[in-house]
Amino acid sequence: MLLCDIGNSSYHFLDGENAFKESVSTFNPTSVTKKVYFISVNAAVSKRVASLENWIDLAAFVDKKKYYETMGIDRIVAAMAIENGVIVDAGSAITVDVVKNGVFCGGFIYAGVKAMQKTYANISPALAYSFNFECDLDIMPKNSQDAISYGYLKTLYLEVMSHNLPIILTGGDASKFKRIFKDAKIDDQLIFNSMKKIINEDGLC
Amino acid sequence: MLLCDIGNSSYHFLDGENAFKESVSTFNPTSVTKKVYFISVNAAVSKRVASLENWIDLAAFVDKKKYYETMGIDRIVAAMAIENGVIVDAGSAITVDVVKNGVFCGGFIYAGVKAMQKTYANISPALAYSFNFECDLDIMPKNSQDAISYGYLKTLYLEVMSHNLPIILTGGDASKFKRIFKDAKIDDQLIFNSMKKIINEDGLC
Repeated sequence: MLLCDIGNSSYHFLDGENAFKESVSTFNPTSVTKKVYFISVNAAVSKRVASLENWIDLAAFVDKKKYYETMGIDRIVAAMAIENGVIVDAGSAITVDVVKNGVFCGGFIYAGVKAMQKTYANISPALAYSFNFECDLDIMPKNSQDAISYGYLKTLYLEVMSHNLPIILTGGDASKFKRIFKDAKIDDQLIFNSMKKIINEDGLC
Repeated sequence: MLLCDIGNSSYHFLDGENAFKESVSTFNPTSVTKKVYFISVNAAVSKRVASLENWIDLAAFVDKKKYYETMGIDRIVAAMAIENGVIVDAGSAITVDVVKNGVFCGGFIYAGVKAMQKTYANISPALAYSFNFECDLDIMPKNSQDAISYGYLKTLYLEVMSHNLPIILTGGDASKFKRIFKDAKIDDQLIFNSMKKIINEDGLC
């Protein structure tokens, strides 16, 4: 049995203890012969795997009424995993979702690290820096690299901290954001664990 | 006499009371015969006008030591205009600069409206919305348009408000941000007024 969380840019697989990624642009889902339980926010890939018998969409087993119509299934499945907290899922987009006493309170979408660096570089070649995750967010910046790093990170930091809830970091850039959210817990398996719970509760295997 | 604030995407002119913009990609600076006092953050345009005798760069008359080396001259000139406040200059980039008792305390750079909408649309076609500036920033969003609007606006809002200083909005998107920063003052002429002050103080005309 394989688990797969399909995002905008990659297939994120879990095979037993082994997690690995494949690029959406190059990976061929028909190459998998095992049964795959998946969730997908990628409409093109969803369409592609819909006709494959061994690809089982877990979205069909989720009570979406507690969330909102166009909310990504990855955010829903992550939110189902916790009772209280702010989930920061840092991938090509960063989704921030708040759960209190097991109830989803809403969430927002921020741009991911790569997308945002590209945005600054496109605005001006003078802003073509990598973000400095060691930037001191307690003082106003006085150089260009920190000025974009602070602009991207401090703004997100203040919103996330304003909820006064435990912070759970997941997604490919979780470890980068741990440098900003120092008390946060990194949980690489948040979505996969929630997917396993759905499979078990619905007696799918 | 003309004033001109040259940004990443446009020449912003002031001719007496009349302000107008020309596109960086199409406007020919040799077509101007009057004397032009300008500032520029656009390296390509700076190079182009450097050889034109009637284009006078006001950057040469600014004490840059009080700021930082790679800080855009538009931000410096805007900061010179106030004693206390947060300047939010909303153009293709949004610069946020803090001045206390006439001293520049630092600042940061955020992505402009157009650039950021493009960023979200590039991350996923499901996020290709315009921002909703009427979005209620006091509640967590439960639809996709508000999820990106809140992600872009609430984060910026919290940082800007955290300084507890008067807010001055300028730049092409100032009126959009007035809907978020309800107590802010819009000052379209902030940079031009500061340029005039430099011209007068240095006896340039």
